[in-house]
Amino acid sequence: MSETISGRLTAAGHELDVRIYFEDTDFSGVVYHARYLHFLERGRSDFLRLKGFDHRALMEGAFGSPMAFAVRHMEIDFLRPARIDDIVTVETRSRLVGGARILLDQTIRRADETLVTAAVKVAVISPEGKPMRMPQGVMSGLAPPDAEAGG
Amino acid sequence: MSETISGRLTAAGHELDVRIYFEDTDFSGVVYHARYLHFLERGRSDFLRLKGFDHRALMEGAFGSPMAFAVRHMEIDFLRPARIDDIVTVETRSRLVGGARILLDQTIRRADETLVTAAVKVAVISPEGKPMRMPQGVMSGLAPPDAEAGG
Amino acid sequence: MSETISGRLTAAGHELDVRIYFEDTDFSGVVYHARYLHFLERGRSDFLRLKGFDHRALMEGAFGSPMAFAVRHMEIDFLRPARIDDIVTVETRSRLVGGARILLDQTIRRADETLVTAAVKVAVISPEGKPMRMPQGVMSGLAPPDAEAGG
Amino acid sequence: MSETISGRLTAAGHELDVRIYFEDTDFSGVVYHARYLHFLERGRSDFLRLKGFDHRALMEGAFGSPMAFAVRHMEIDFLRPARIDDIVTVETRSRLVGGARILLDQTIRRADETLVTAAVKVAVISPEGKPMRMPQGVMSGLAPPDAEAGG
Repeated sequence: MSETISGRLTAAGHELDVRIYFEDTDFSGVVYHARYLHFLERGRSDFLRLKGFDHRALMEGAFGSPMAFAVRHMEIDFLRPARIDDIVTVETRSRLVGGARILLDQTIRRADETLVTAAVKVAVISPEGKPMRMPQGVMSGLAPPDAEAGG
Repeated sequence: MSETISGRLTAAGHELDVRIYFEDTDFSGVVYHARYLHFLERGRSDFLRLKGFDHRALMEGAFGSPMAFAVRHMEIDFLRPARIDDIVTVETRSRLVGGARILLDQTIRRADETLVTAAVKVAVISPEGKPMRMPQGVMSGLAPPDAEAGG
Repeated sequence: MSETISGRLTAAGHELDVRIYFEDTDFSGVVYHARYLHFLERGRSDFLRLKGFDHRALMEGAFGSPMAFAVRHMEIDFLRPARIDDIVTVETRSRLVGGARILLDQTIRRADETLVTAAVKVAVISPEGKPMRMPQGVMSGLAPPDAEAGG
Repeated sequence: MSETISGRLTAAGHELDVRIYFEDTDFSGVVYHARYLHFLERGRSDFLRLKGFDHRALMEGAFGSPMAFAVRHMEIDFLRPARIDDIVTVETRSRLVGGARILLDQTIRRADETLVTAAVKVAVISPEGKPMRMPQGVMSGLAPPDAEAGG
């Protein structure tokens, strides 16, 4: 069960299925736009989790200096709306894993329809919120075989 | 997959596993109290779904007069906090299925620890928000074998 | 401005005006039930604030041992829905201020209509989440002239 | 009071003060990134409101064909975090008011510090979600004196 609830690693990255509930919709009848950022964050968190890094362990320093990730920049297109009862799939791919930041491409789709696309820049910060470099073990665990080198 | 994402029917009612994400926590380090009501609503929605009734179909009149459910009363105990990365289980049992309302008992637990208990009264309303009686097909589909009769 | 944004102290307690935005509504066209708990929490926070106690200062130990408040029990009636663009008023009165807990009565109304009523029990906890007694300065600052003694 | 709660029109556009509550923060101790999109949406809604257009009236066709606004594209920089108890100011300026869309520049600042900047594209849609052109009365009401012409 815990595999399914955390999505699945793929050749390209990670996929997570998300159900649309009442809480996600607004008075216009479709999903409130900011909710898609929650779904994207769930995808990133479960991608990390299946790579062996959960947020609490990162924050507690289980892999080196205590650290967290913080979103620094996002460019997002809201193409089509999701609706209540839908199941949508969040796809997450890392484009660049650097020492101090990660660039990711994410999409949300319903079957073959792309609903949302996002380019996301995530920075590494200390528990006090200061920029820092990722512990080496985290960085090598997250780097995809075909990612650009960078930092 | 869709069975797992919607939880499972049990002898007593329904169970749904929910992951705790960043979005669910607050500055105190644990889950924000109102988020548990979201988890409870997800449990009720998926219980309905596995019984054959999703919200959109109910609202569109697929089972008789168009209808929706609205929470009218809730008594809730917040016993222990859930934390980021936890998986918690939402248990839902219907205590009474009446023509115009349903009484449910719900709990949220993490393994053997009970975190939240709630007694919930849900009313049947029309799309315009007026009280109404449930279509017979919905009522008989939801009544558990051992529920009290009522209305 | 900061007075208005934080509401106002009254003979009975505190009042806060809250605007209903898109984010507060759901696909049924009215406010999502769990959102009212957010409005109630804003009312309690601003009541504390105007009494001289903000959350960060409490947590940092500005008034004695570091502490926070956590909701332990809530009984809530959802009587009528609020709608987008509405302004609703959250009323907060403390019924009992004890050493380890506070009992409050809260309502949400739109002009003369009562939309929601809630009886709330809030406990005092340490930053680690353990039950504790309120520093004396906080307790005497919060006790209303006519509150029951207790603890 | 209703003027203050809806912010204020300025030479450049609109400003709204927003309080940071528990609900806005997450386990990292600062505001959850998606919450800033809520604050931006509140700013846009209240800008519209002070220009004479609230969402319910737009949706009910009070100014011509029924319409709503939907966010289509957003580029957002999260520069510095807001914290609990902070008051932040959301600034909204329309850069281009076209027949079918509006481009806006928004910032969130705390006193003199810029926390978030966003470029937002909002489209005009019918109640069924189809693209449409704004009724003339809405368009002329929203166009700033110095906006680019466009559509």
